[in-house]
This record gives sequence, structure tokens and C-alpha cells, in this order.
Amino acid sequence: MFEFRITRRVEFHETDLAGIVHFSNFFRYMEVCEHAFVRSFGTVVHPGENNDGGIIGWPRVHSECDYRRPLRYDEEFEIHLLVHDKKEKAIHYDFRFWKPGDAATTPLAQGKLVVVSVGRIAGEVKAIPLSPLFLQHIQIAPAELLAQYK
Amino acid sequence: MFEFRITRRVEFHETDLAGIVHFSNFFRYMEVCEHAFVRSFGTVVHPGENNDGGIIGWPRVHSECDYRRPLRYDEEFEIHLLVHDKKEKAIHYDFRFWKPGDAATTPLAQGKLVVVSVGRIAGEVKAIPLSPLFLQHIQIAPAELLAQYK
Amino acid sequence: MFEFRITRRVEFHETDLAGIVHFSNFFRYMEVCEHAFVRSFGTVVHPGENNDGGIIGWPRVHSECDYRRPLRYDEEFEIHLLVHDKKEKAIHYDFRFWKPGDAATTPLAQGKLVVVSVGRIAGEVKAIPLSPLFLQHIQIAPAELLAQYK
Amino acid sequence: MFEFRITRRVEFHETDLAGIVHFSNFFRYMEVCEHAFVRSFGTVVHPGENNDGGIIGWPRVHSECDYRRPLRYDEEFEIHLLVHDKKEKAIHYDFRFWKPGDAATTPLAQGKLVVVSVGRIAGEVKAIPLSPLFLQHIQIAPAELLAQYK
Repeated sequence: MFEFRITRRVEFHETDLAGIVHFSNFFRYMEVCEHAFVRSFGTVVHPGENNDGGIIGWPRVHSECDYRRPLRYDEEFEIHLLVHDKKEKAIHYDFRFWKPGDAATTPLAQGKLVVVSVGRIAGEVKAIPLSPLFLQHIQIAPAELLAQYK
Repeated sequence: MFEFRITRRVEFHETDLAGIVHFSNFFRYMEVCEHAFVRSFGTVVHPGENNDGGIIGWPRVHSECDYRRPLRYDEEFEIHLLVHDKKEKAIHYDFRFWKPGDAATTPLAQGKLVVVSVGRIAGEVKAIPLSPLFLQHIQIAPAELLAQYK
Repeated sequence: MFEFRITRRVEFHETDLAGIVHFSNFFRYMEVCEHAFVRSFGTVVHPGENNDGGIIGWPRVHSECDYRRPLRYDEEFEIHLLVHDKKEKAIHYDFRFWKPGDAATTPLAQGKLVVVSVGRIAGEVKAIPLSPLFLQHIQIAPAELLAQYK
Repeated sequence: MFEFRITRRVEFHETDLAGIVHFSNFFRYMEVCEHAFVRSFGTVVHPGENNDGGIIGWPRVHSECDYRRPLRYDEEFEIHLLVHDKKEKAIHYDFRFWKPGDAATTPLAQGKLVVVSVGRIAGEVKAIPLSPLFLQHIQIAPAELLAQYK
């Protein structure tokens, strides 16, 4: 798989006094979509010890977001995840936010997360290779798809 | 000690589209005040294992809040903690929220937290007695103070 | 209608270092359920000006929660809303949190929200009577149902 | 001014089950520091209508963060803001997070916010030039300072 989509509705507590979703919440939305993606092929992001090749967590090392159009209370929206890159010990995800049936030619917002798989080696938390489960299920998205909204 | 005060300023992300502090954030404010209180006599709420009489945490078993006047972005406010009760394994806190120099006769909001001290007994997390540090530093507030804003 | 149910999954950002859902988030869950309930009979909680009998918002005047069992990352749970009381200008909601297929005889948590309908009268935000839409769709739950988990 | 610093302590609700500050909260920290910076020269980020050259808000159009070392509950940290660029209608801020007395040669985390000043023109919210107050008080930081932690 190289892409995944979820839909969601803006909750009241996610808005701020400007009447729109607080910009920090787009990072929570991206993470929720990433976790749903990972769940879709049978694992969870925080499996605890001794599961899935020893992975105990996925710290984020980079995150970013560009905001183009506001998102308001009670509006439905789609989060579209794309696998941008797959490294030995890290995954780069791209995210695009859309309104359903959106006629717009650019997303509401676009973001990125770079996450590293970590495990415990001799008592210390260290980056470790992606597990076979991730290697098997995750493919890099086609270049033309990744280049679509720059 | 039976009371404690901190002041704080409303942050933008704490507001919602109604232009006021989202009601759930008053519980975060209460907890921040409780933790500052506990820090003031030399411990932290989550000391980890084998510290302070074996206490490893303080789960909340009850919380409540009454909201009387709105609190807005950038406004300063005071959180006033009072020890309402001290049980063998639990503490009942009262909280009152004020604007500095407030001429009002009732608080902006009033709340309560009931927290239980837990430790690990034979591998299981269970309620345990308050540590000597808490017993030494925490007194119940005078009844007339507790009864002031019902 | 006197009750409503939604299911939800715990998101990573809703947990705290104790490994469970932060207690303040139960209030966000209650509100999300209330808003879904209101949406189910064709309105939204923040309709803006001049809609639904002039109601412009539903400030919370009281909230509370009792926590009995922990709720963890990635767990599914059900929020069960019951209309506890219907006043001229306010609604009292009860909430119970369950795991699906829960064999337990008490909820994970139980909560309450008291919300007031407000509108603009001569420029000022004031409590106003419930709109016909609310009066038509909301009934008080049977007493034996409300008394079930005290 | 081209830089500003605040210190802060990690609050319990800001952590997640991995025991560290949830990555999304670094964006809230950056914003709190930006708002304190703006307050320091006599304005607020959301002044309402008809104030400070007609600016009614500062939507974020870009945000990013790189995470290098974890930040834990109850730890104090410093947020260091630098003005990276000043455009006609936008400000680019850089942020660096440090522990006090940090011997480390790289920050805990580094981030960026790009914010646009908006006002109401003929009823519509549009980007407008920075107000005289901002032009007077904000200078771009020296290039060697900005280049220090790439």
C-alpha cells in the first residue's frame, strides 16, 4: 500500500477564537491517519515490548504543514496519506486535506511527518530497521502522485 | 499548607470558536495548579518507581467544574487551590478561578478534583496510603473558607 | 429521543505519560457525543445568528466526571448519552462510557454536562428558551434508566 | 527586536503514553512565544476590529518542527524566537528549544512559523500590510544567528 484515506468531522474543541481549526490540530489529524493506516495492515503504532520485530514506538523527527484554506467547526474533511519515502529505519509520509466533493484544485492543507522506528537495544532506546510487517505492506507512492501538489 | 495560588494567562489554543476558554481546559488548569502545589513542598506528581513512599501516580477519580463568567484570550487569571479533605489514600481539592483585582463576589469558575495515591503492590497498581511527605505538608482548609462559595 | 450512542477509538494524543486517556479528554468526548446527538435531529450546536429560534450557542455551566477504570490508546469505547433533565433554558445530560461487549457492571466512567441555550437580546448574550426543534426532539429519559449507575 | 525568549515547564496533559511531550504541542509552544513577543511591544495577536492598522488576526500559512531530543514532564525549557524574515504582509519566525544550562550543541527541537497579517477589506478577510507597530518593532535577525543550527 502506498496511500490511505480517512474522513473526519471537525470537533468543537479543535477550533479557536478565530473560528477555524487551530493549526496545531492538523498534526494530530495526520497522526490519527498514520495510525489508522498502520492498523489497516494489522499492527499498532505502540505495540509494547517484544512485538512486531522489536519496535516499541515511532518518534516523530520532522513535521510540517502548509495551510491554504480554513477548516471550520462541524465540517467534514478527508485526510489523504501517501508514502513519500521508505528508509531503512524511517518512513516519510505526505498528507493532503480535502473537503469531500471539493472542486478546488489545491488541498485545504498539506503536511509531512517523518517517523523513525525505535526499539530497545541493550536497555537503550535506539532506531532499528523497519519490521518485516512494514516492509511487506508499505510501498513508496508513484512519483507523479507525490509531485501533484507542490 | 491548605491553600496555594498560581496566576496564568489564557493561551490562544485554549480558546474555541465561541471566543472563550474551552470548558475542558479548566480541568487542565486545576491539574497544573495541583502539580505546582505538590512541587512547592518538594515532590512531583509522577515521581516514578521507589520514590516518596512508593507512590507512582495520582489518578483522578472525580472532577467537576461550575462555570459562571467567561474567560477570554490573553486574560490573566488566578487559580486558588484549597485542600477540601485528606483521606487515608486520597486528597480532595477545591479550586476557584479569579481575575486579578476582581471586584466580583463569585469566582469565574469553581471546581473539584479527587485524586488517589497509587503504588505497585506485588506487581499490581493499587491505592496506597499518602506518603509521609504529603501527610506532613497537607492540611485541610478551615471550614469557613471551604464554605465561602457554594 | 432521550438517549444517543457513539463509538470512538482512543487517539494517541489523548493519552498521557501514565499510559491512559488524560482525564480532561472525557469532557471533550461528552461534548462530541452531545453534538452528534443534536446533529441527529437536524441542527448544530453553533448555528450562528438567526437560526433555530435565535440560539447562538450552548455554554456549559456545569460538568463532572467519575473515573472507574482506565481507558488506553487504540481501545474502542462507547459513549452513551441520556437526557437527565430539560429545563426552560437548559438541558442536563448524563454520560456513561463503556467498552464494547463490556461484561463489567459499572461504566468505565460517568459524567454530566449542564448546557444553557443562549441568544442575543438587544445586543446582549442571554439565556433564552429552548427552541421548538429541541422541545420537539428531546425527552427526559425514564427515571429507572437514569438511576441505574449511581 | 529580532529575538525573544520565554521559559516554561512541561505540563502533565502535554505528555503522551511514550512519556514525552506530544510533538503537536511544540507548535502550541511556538505560538505562545510568538504571542508573548508581540505582547512585549504593546499589541496582541488578536486585537479585534479597528485596532493596530486594521489587523484582525494572524493566520499561520506554514509551520514545521524538527525534533532531536525528548522533553519530559515537569522539565523546564526555553523557547528562543528569532525573526527570520519580514515581508510586506508576513513574518517568518524561527524557534529553538533548549533546556536551561544545556551543554548540548544542538537544540531539543527547532521550528518555524510563517504568519500573515489579515484585515477586513470591503467585508472580506484579506492579507494586509504589517502595521506601523510591527514595522517599528520587528527587525530581521543577523544572518549568522539564523544560520547557527541548520
